[in-house]
Amino acid sequence: MNKSEIKITIIGLGYVGLPLAVEFAKKYKVIGFDINQNRIEELEKNNDSTLEIKDETISSVRDNLNFTSNIDDTKECNIYIICIPTPIDEFNKPNLEPLINSSKTVGGVIKKNDIIIYESTVYPGATEDICVKELEKSSGLKFNQDFFCGYSPERINPGDKVNTLSKIVKITSGSTPKIADKVDELYKSIITAGTYKVSSIKVAEAAKVIENTQRDLNIALINELSVILGRLNLDTLEVLEAAGSKWNFLPFRPGLVGGHCIGVDPYYLTHAAEQVNYNPQIILAGRRINDNMGFYMVQKVIQQMINNDIEIKNSTVGLMGITFKENCRDFRIQKL
Amino acid sequence: MNKSEIKITIIGLGYVGLPLAVEFAKKYKVIGFDINQNRIEELEKNNDSTLEIKDETISSVRDNLNFTSNIDDTKECNIYIICIPTPIDEFNKPNLEPLINSSKTVGGVIKKNDIIIYESTVYPGATEDICVKELEKSSGLKFNQDFFCGYSPERINPGDKVNTLSKIVKITSGSTPKIADKVDELYKSIITAGTYKVSSIKVAEAAKVIENTQRDLNIALINELSVILGRLNLDTLEVLEAAGSKWNFLPFRPGLVGGHCIGVDPYYLTHAAEQVNYNPQIILAGRRINDNMGFYMVQKVIQQMINNDIEIKNSTVGLMGITFKENCRDFRIQKL
Repeated sequence: MNKSEIKITIIGLGYVGLPLAVEFAKKYKVIGFDINQNRIEELEKNNDSTLEIKDETISSVRDNLNFTSNIDDTKECNIYIICIPTPIDEFNKPNLEPLINSSKTVGGVIKKNDIIIYESTVYPGATEDICVKELEKSSGLKFNQDFFCGYSPERINPGDKVNTLSKIVKITSGSTPKIADKVDELYKSIITAGTYKVSSIKVAEAAKVIENTQRDLNIALINELSVILGRLNLDTLEVLEAAGSKWNFLPFRPGLVGGHCIGVDPYYLTHAAEQVNYNPQIILAGRRINDNMGFYMVQKVIQQMINNDIEIKNSTVGLMGITFKENCRDFRIQKL
Repeated sequence: MNKSEIKITIIGLGYVGLPLAVEFAKKYKVIGFDINQNRIEELEKNNDSTLEIKDETISSVRDNLNFTSNIDDTKECNIYIICIPTPIDEFNKPNLEPLINSSKTVGGVIKKNDIIIYESTVYPGATEDICVKELEKSSGLKFNQDFFCGYSPERINPGDKVNTLSKIVKITSGSTPKIADKVDELYKSIITAGTYKVSSIKVAEAAKVIENTQRDLNIALINELSVILGRLNLDTLEVLEAAGSKWNFLPFRPGLVGGHCIGVDPYYLTHAAEQVNYNPQIILAGRRINDNMGFYMVQKVIQQMINNDIEIKNSTVGLMGITFKENCRDFRIQKL
């Protein structure tokens, strides 16, 4: 495939898909697809409500970048990159429905030799076991014969203006060694930090899902420490800062974890572990701690209110800055 | 206290106490005390069997440094620094007996205005609750009136020739603000990396015990991941290296933890937690995983032996390099 022949569709234009579409549009013809008509309308006006990409950056690549909510507009493309969220359900189990639906949608338009690349965080095996099956079903084409797949996990850090898409090394993989090379070449052409090609899609899936698991667990440990230190009447921050005077102490801080990744991805990994009859001890302990920090904080507030003779029942609570990212602005009033 | 008046006894001349004695002896009169007569004899010959300090380094400070196993030889000292191991018993509970015994011993010789500094890793509160009580009992003196205490946790990394005593920032604390300043001044005079004074002995104790807990847990997570990835037929190292291509992924590796610190210190912290009715979830999950990695490896070996038609019962196993530090030489033959 020559550069001039490459036509890319990005499926899903959230804070992962849009930056990718804009970056690719600097070099290739790109169609941005989203089922959300409102999102398409704002992007048509070069306006990104997620605040990841500036208006002028979008407008500067519009010669190469079109937006649509009609999948038939993407039929001339030969590369489809799926940037769809992978949430969990109310039982903390992976909810692959959005991913399955978009695989069906894409399966309806792909042709021979097209490459479908997934960027969504999943458990190891999910792309080939679940998504490929849907692609085969709805396309009638055969995997690794008629069409091929790649997996290149997104590493977007929402709101981070330093570590942006092109400045973060990107893991690449493909369903055959030749396709892995093609996927790697494609990303290499836009990621100035370089790419990291691995031996299989499954390895790439695993590498992604353990990243956020490690972060979740380190925050959970600090949360557990803060509970213990609190009971021992010690100032958590003073203790952490003292420990941090050692060169190899890791400077995590207690707090809530949230967003689409840290609190979610570990459950994808534990789901896969349970599939092979391993009950994860540490990872789930970490999740429990972090999931309970909200309740813990409420408990602390109520204790303080009681100590200060504040009536609990009819109180109004103002939540200031309770966001999963620091320095976000949020203010909510909540009736207890 | 002028510099010329300072006379220091180091209690316990292992890989913590000896480097400290040698460093202080560059500036002060120091007596090194150990109950182990063999240790005293080798040190008298300037020979350190723990290989932390070179012969010529010891001999170069012998004008200021004497060794003894008789506590009465230390009576003229005014600062006692206790560098005694704090192991766990067979129920993974802190075994404070060595610390209590050395506190008794030191209590037998201290005089008015002496300062006793502890370097041993303990749970927050142990120095003042346990050790001080012993000192008072055996000395007949009153704490913070007749004698004073400090706590400055050792951060020696055995075998590490780069991060040596004087190059690692040292936390200091004291039983009164004035004593904290004195303890800080004392260590500042030998630690070129500087000191980090905290507000209380308890904070210093907590800071130390969480350091190794964090390390233990991070290794435990990687061990758990390696078990899961193994079951998913993925190469752990390839996955870790791929994840490591992200700037903020922490490069821990699976393996056994051992020695006097990593596998022990977390139990000191959990002991304190249970004292205040908190059952630590993550820390103990981490300990369980790491404590079980030996069994896990044996299981893997036996599986391989069965697969390769090797008779288990009368086999002889050679253990190569099974040490808790990398690049140590060890070779043992074990009958299964």
